[in-house]
Amino acid sequence: MDFDTFFAEQLDGVREEGRYRVFTDIKRHCGKFPHATRFVDNETQAVTVWCSNDYLGMGQHPKVIDAMHATLDECGAGAGGTRNISGTNHYHVELEAELADLHRKESALLFTSGYVSNWAGLGTLASKIPGCVVFSDALNHASMIEGIRHSRAPYKVWKHNDVEDLDRLLSEYPSDTPKLVAFESVYSMDGDIAPIADILDVCEKHGAMSYIDEVHGVGLYGPRGGGVAEQEGLMDRITVIEGTLGKAFGVMGGYIAASRDLVDFVRSFASGFIFSTALPPAVAAGAAASIRHLKESSEERDLQKQRVAEVRRQLDMMNIPHLPNPSHIIPVMVGDAKKCKMISDWLMDNHGIYVQPINYPTVPVGTERLRLTPSPVHDTGDITRLINALSEIWSQCELARGRIAA
Amino acid sequence: MDFDTFFAEQLDGVREEGRYRVFTDIKRHCGKFPHATRFVDNETQAVTVWCSNDYLGMGQHPKVIDAMHATLDECGAGAGGTRNISGTNHYHVELEAELADLHRKESALLFTSGYVSNWAGLGTLASKIPGCVVFSDALNHASMIEGIRHSRAPYKVWKHNDVEDLDRLLSEYPSDTPKLVAFESVYSMDGDIAPIADILDVCEKHGAMSYIDEVHGVGLYGPRGGGVAEQEGLMDRITVIEGTLGKAFGVMGGYIAASRDLVDFVRSFASGFIFSTALPPAVAAGAAASIRHLKESSEERDLQKQRVAEVRRQLDMMNIPHLPNPSHIIPVMVGDAKKCKMISDWLMDNHGIYVQPINYPTVPVGTERLRLTPSPVHDTGDITRLINALSEIWSQCELARGRIAA
Repeated sequence: MDFDTFFAEQLDGVREEGRYRVFTDIKRHCGKFPHATRFVDNETQAVTVWCSNDYLGMGQHPKVIDAMHATLDECGAGAGGTRNISGTNHYHVELEAELADLHRKESALLFTSGYVSNWAGLGTLASKIPGCVVFSDALNHASMIEGIRHSRAPYKVWKHNDVEDLDRLLSEYPSDTPKLVAFESVYSMDGDIAPIADILDVCEKHGAMSYIDEVHGVGLYGPRGGGVAEQEGLMDRITVIEGTLGKAFGVMGGYIAASRDLVDFVRSFASGFIFSTALPPAVAAGAAASIRHLKESSEERDLQKQRVAEVRRQLDMMNIPHLPNPSHIIPVMVGDAKKCKMISDWLMDNHGIYVQPINYPTVPVGTERLRLTPSPVHDTGDITRLINALSEIWSQCELARGRIAA
Repeated sequence: MDFDTFFAEQLDGVREEGRYRVFTDIKRHCGKFPHATRFVDNETQAVTVWCSNDYLGMGQHPKVIDAMHATLDECGAGAGGTRNISGTNHYHVELEAELADLHRKESALLFTSGYVSNWAGLGTLASKIPGCVVFSDALNHASMIEGIRHSRAPYKVWKHNDVEDLDRLLSEYPSDTPKLVAFESVYSMDGDIAPIADILDVCEKHGAMSYIDEVHGVGLYGPRGGGVAEQEGLMDRITVIEGTLGKAFGVMGGYIAASRDLVDFVRSFASGFIFSTALPPAVAAGAAASIRHLKESSEERDLQKQRVAEVRRQLDMMNIPHLPNPSHIIPVMVGDAKKCKMISDWLMDNHGIYVQPINYPTVPVGTERLRLTPSPVHDTGDITRLINALSEIWSQCELARGRIAA
C-alpha cells in the first residue's frame, strides 16, 4: 500500500468538504489581551482575538505570571518524571488541595489536559467497575465519548439535556446495575446549560453516579468560580466534577474532584494518569494562583457578564442573529459553511478581527456559526469595531437579519 | 451499588499486593539539580534525586529557563484554545519546525504529552487506514498499547526485540494488507535497545510502516540528539518517529515527526489532538530552546555517558548486581517487591537518596529493581554517597552480590 497517496487522498476529501483546517498562527500580547500579532506569508498583522477560551483573560493576570516566573526559578522547567517516579512536585500537591477545596470535595487529581481527565477519568470508572453501564448526553465532548468508548463498557446515549429520556433509559436496567451518568454543565458550541438539579434527581432515584464536565463553567460561575454546580448549590450532590485549568483559569491541565476513595481509585488505575510526565511545576503554580484569585475576586466574572450582555445588546440592535442562551458563549449564526469561512476571512483581512468559523462536524450542517467569547479584556472600542464589522459584512453578503427566539 | 465501598476494597487489594503508590512530594531546586526538598509529615528533608527522567538536567538549563521567562512575559500563561480555535501560537509553529529538522522529516506535530502522542498517533493511523493490522513489540509502553487498543484494529504482539518473530507474523498477511509496526528504541525499564536496522529491513520487506517511540532516546543519542535512529543513521527509513519534550529536553509535551501528508492526516483526524488546549507558549519556547541547544552541544551527552559509566564501574566494584545494557538506564536488581520498597525507604530516610522502587506490574515479579538515571548534574560526591549507601544496605540485608552477565 502506498500510504502517502492514501493520506493525500483523504486530505483532498477533507478539503473538498470544506473541512480542512488551516491554523491561524498568532502571538497573544501578555498585558494587552485580546490583542495579538498574526503571522501569515512572512508578514505580520495586528489582530483582536474574539474566540479565545481564556475567558477571563487570566492568562495575563500578574498573579498568574508572577507565580509562574517564581516557580520556574525555584523548581525549573519540567517535572522530570511521572507523578510516581520523581515527578510529584509540591506545587501539584498544593494545586490538588486547592481544587478539592474549590469544589468542596475530599480530593482532586491533576491530569495533563481536560481531554485526558475525561478520557482517563470516565474510561477508568466505566472499565473498572464490573458491569458498569454509562449514560451519556448526546452532545458530550469528544474526550468523554472517547473515554467511554475506550472503556468497552455498554453505554446509552440520552437526548441532549432531556431528563425524561435519561430517566427512561436508566429505568431499563436493574437497580443493582452500576450506573454512571455523564454530562456537561455548559455546552461549548450552543452555550446552553444542563438542567443539573433535575439530572441529579434522576441519578439519585436510580442510584447512579453523576459525572459533570464543568470545563466551560469553572472560574466563571459560582461565587468562588466553582462552576455552574456551585452557582446552583449542587456540588455536594455530584459524584465527580471534572474541570480544566486551560480555559477560565488561563493556564493548562485538567482534573477531577470527588471523594477520597474515588480519586485514589482513578489515581491508582488510570493508565493515562500513571504513565504521563507530570505538569511543569510552574504551570501548577500558575493555575493555583489563578484559582485562588478567582475564589476571592468576582470582578472578572462581573465584567465578563457586562461584556457579554453588551455584545448581545449590540448584535440585537443590528439584528444580527445569535443563539440565546444563559451562558457567556455567543454563537452568531450563519448557517452555511462557505459563508461562515468567508466572513471569518473577511473580518480578519479587513478588520484584524479573529473569529474562527465553526463548521461541520463540530456543529451540525446548516448551523455553521461564529462563536464569540467576550471577556473582561475586550473594551467598548473592541466591541464597537466588532459589531460594525459584522454589520458591514452582513449587508454586503445580504445575510438574514433578525432575532432567534429564546 | 455502594461505589465508595467498592473503591475502598479495590484500593485495599492494591495495598495487600504491595502495589499501592505513595507519591514522593518534592521541590527540585533549579540550578542545583539533582538536589531537592522533600515534603513529608509537615517536615522537609534535603534529598538527591536519582530517578529523574530529566536525563540531562535540561530542566534547569539557563537557555531553557530564559526562553520560558521571556515567552511568559511576551505571550502570557496559557495558549487560550485548541490549535484550531485561537490556540496556535507562533512558538508552536517554530517548535514543530525544529522537531521536523531534528529528525530530518518533512513535518512534525505537537501533542500535550508523549502519552497522548502515542495514543493519538497510533490510534489514528490504525483506525483510519482501512484494514490496517498493527504489529506491536511485547514490551511496548502503555500509551502505545492503549492507542492500538483504542483503534480497534487487529493487532499481533511480537516477541520483544525478536525480528524473526516479527517477520513470521508479518508473513501471515497478504502483501496488500496495510501493516504498521510499532516499537521503541530504548526500553525504559531494562534499558535495552531495539535492533532498529533489522526491524526496518523486515518492515521494508513486507511494505509495512514503521513507528518508533524514541522518548528515552531523543536528546540523548545521535550527534544532534535525534535519538538512537539518528545515531545509527536510520531516521530516513522510519515512517514515524515519536518523541517527548518531557524527558531529556526537560520540559513537557510529545510529538510525532513524519512525512508532510502523514502528519497532516493525523493533525486532521486525531481527536486527542484536535480537542485539546494547546501547550502553553512558554513550554513550547522552552522545549525549542532545549532542542536547539542539544543539536549544537554534545557536552551534556558526553558528561552523562561518563556519569553512567562511573556509576556502573563503582557498582561493579561493590558487586552490586545491575542489568547490563547499552543505554543510560541502570537497573539495580533486587528481585523482591518488599525488599525493593524497603531499600528505597532506607535510602531516603538515612541518606536522603531518592530512588523510586520499581515493582510489579511495571516490571515482572522477581525482577523488582531500583532504576538509576545518572545525569550530568550528579557529581562525583553524589555518586560516592549513592554507592556507599547501596553497599551498606546490601550488607545489612545480606542481599545477593555479583555481576549479571551481558
